[in-house]
Amino acid sequence: MLGMQKAFMEVDNNKLQPAEMDGLKVVSFGFFAEQAHQAAIYRGPIISGILKQFLVDTNWSNLDYLIVDLPPGTGDIPLTLAQTIPITGILVVTTPQDVASNVATKAIGMFNKLNVPIIGVIENMSYFICPKCSDKHYIFGEGGAKRISEQFSIPFLGEIPLNSGIMEGSDKGKPIILSHPTSPSAEAIRVSAKNVAAQCSILAAKLKEEMQGTAAQ
Amino acid sequence: MLGMQKAFMEVDNNKLQPAEMDGLKVVSFGFFAEQAHQAAIYRGPIISGILKQFLVDTNWSNLDYLIVDLPPGTGDIPLTLAQTIPITGILVVTTPQDVASNVATKAIGMFNKLNVPIIGVIENMSYFICPKCSDKHYIFGEGGAKRISEQFSIPFLGEIPLNSGIMEGSDKGKPIILSHPTSPSAEAIRVSAKNVAAQCSILAAKLKEEMQGTAAQ
Repeated sequence: MLGMQKAFMEVDNNKLQPAEMDGLKVVSFGFFAEQAHQAAIYRGPIISGILKQFLVDTNWSNLDYLIVDLPPGTGDIPLTLAQTIPITGILVVTTPQDVASNVATKAIGMFNKLNVPIIGVIENMSYFICPKCSDKHYIFGEGGAKRISEQFSIPFLGEIPLNSGIMEGSDKGKPIILSHPTSPSAEAIRVSAKNVAAQCSILAAKLKEEMQGTAAQ
Repeated sequence: MLGMQKAFMEVDNNKLQPAEMDGLKVVSFGFFAEQAHQAAIYRGPIISGILKQFLVDTNWSNLDYLIVDLPPGTGDIPLTLAQTIPITGILVVTTPQDVASNVATKAIGMFNKLNVPIIGVIENMSYFICPKCSDKHYIFGEGGAKRISEQFSIPFLGEIPLNSGIMEGSDKGKPIILSHPTSPSAEAIRVSAKNVAAQCSILAAKLKEEMQGTAAQ
């Protein structure tokens, strides 16, 4: 989605060097697979090992945010993540329909069990506005993320429309927020991002307090 | 998607009894999680064990098809599957955009490596027809599945439109092919299913020959 298919992972002083674009430092399991020109076939324990390397053995230097994009649902990777580093919070992203929000619900249950805070929920593919007649269509149904927000008392942080511009931007590696910064889709993403950042500040302050408390004991 | 949220898995003579609906016998990891009213947090090796139980320790009796719905991409479950039972073939389902078809491509690479035949590729969410003005929109781009079909020389078996009727049917547990059997969406699914069945017959005959060949050696 960032157009980094050809990025390489260099190693310097025994640390992985992340690829960089527009101020984002990126490591991805996909880079290895690209380098080897083959599909990555690994079982969970090996993937967990690689995830730990990405977290611990990478030359991140100072970051504002460290964002980990997880596969849907529950599994080895979120478990390993929660057991390896302190997590500010989990951002839940879902589409509106029940079969998707049910998967999100299970993931929230898992992180609750692991005592990882939830930042909030964002709804993706919320609605489609017909470019010809401007009619608004809730193709995937309505209100899935709002129901999750109420059910778990977690903040509802935004909705992203279904829009071919967003898809094209992702395929070309040019996010719509850079290519069309004043479009309604870019604005929806910007509003959501601001909401997420505000919640993160609150949770990060809490986490810092807890860690200082633990250190003092 | 089959409205079986409340289905239970009974055990009889040490065999799991599948739940049943409209002639479909179903086992699902979700049933256990529902019974326990909790999120399923298990690592890959445990999930692989459960998958083996579903395949081997379930009272399937005679089936026309045994269909396993896999998570996207590569991982423990498809690996375990390929190493546990002989597989007639893999049906690849993708949406049109590159970021999705890239994941499908990796899965095809994995199954090629494991010598599992590919039945073909179906494109989901191919296009959206505006219910108000009838304009056709390729929201996720065009031709992702056809590109995969050409790249790997595997059959292109159909395209399913993006349609709120399909979504609603899935959420309510009433597939559109039963609730609106003459709708264009149901017709698209029926055509795809027939193409899949035809390919399966060919591959199943091949598999039978191979297994008899192996048994004779």
